[in-house]
Amino acid sequence: MKMTNQEEKIGKLIEKQSVSFVGSIDENDFPCIKAMLPPCKREGLKYFYWHTNNASMKINQYKNNSKACVYFYDSQDIAGVTLTGTMEVLDDIEIKKEIWKNGFDRWYTGGMDGGDFIIIKFTAENGRYYHNLQKENFKIK
Amino acid sequence: MKMTNQEEKIGKLIEKQSVSFVGSIDENDFPCIKAMLPPCKREGLKYFYWHTNNASMKINQYKNNSKACVYFYDSQDIAGVTLTGTMEVLDDIEIKKEIWKNGFDRWYTGGMDGGDFIIIKFTAENGRYYHNLQKENFKIK
Repeated sequence: MKMTNQEEKIGKLIEKQSVSFVGSIDENDFPCIKAMLPPCKREGLKYFYWHTNNASMKINQYKNNSKACVYFYDSQDIAGVTLTGTMEVLDDIEIKKEIWKNGFDRWYTGGMDGGDFIIIKFTAENGRYYHNLQKENFKIK
Repeated sequence: MKMTNQEEKIGKLIEKQSVSFVGSIDENDFPCIKAMLPPCKREGLKYFYWHTNNASMKINQYKNNSKACVYFYDSQDIAGVTLTGTMEVLDDIEIKKEIWKNGFDRWYTGGMDGGDFIIIKFTAENGRYYHNLQKENFKIK
């Protein structure tokens, strides 16, 4: 996929951040926000992957309601991007093998296939980019 | 209201942050996240106020669906708190007078009562506090 200027600009914003914020909908239809590490894998502005604990609250939320958002915020540049789309919970050995790294045992009981290590994959549909007081909506193909 | 240890601990986390993240639900029922300045007024962990532009997207979202969350994240301490509750849009002259400060004209066309300056008030019902890998749910009275 050829990278557009916009994709490059927003990609740079994302790459600079040491934290990503993910949004979910809880069982009473309230929005929830949670800080996570940066995505461990990313394909353009379309697909984002994180590893996380299977027991975490957001896993149940995404299984019940896949509507999600991801937000990256650059405090130095006063810029941010919200991407809305869907989050899948992937309990799949192939993607786990791809993402697993030595040392992850520290965080995941039983290791790669112990049941606690799980992957979430976000597929973006719509974006909104903020810079200074300007805003820009875009579709993600 | 007597301050509990928990309220004090989370209050300190909130006071340290230069940014707050607010969550809303969009017209297609997707969660949205937006960075804002810290609240300009706060009453314990129950009530939070921000001033913002009436034309901003979240104003419409909160008018359509008042379900909201607020998230504060301390990257140094790896601690965060999500509060869920409701967000009201207050177009009320008394609260505007209380919150308006000299110099706000820079951001708000027409000044305090020009129509662009608006207050949002969050009322928290439930909280979830994260510190290291520990989590704690609590009710806000």
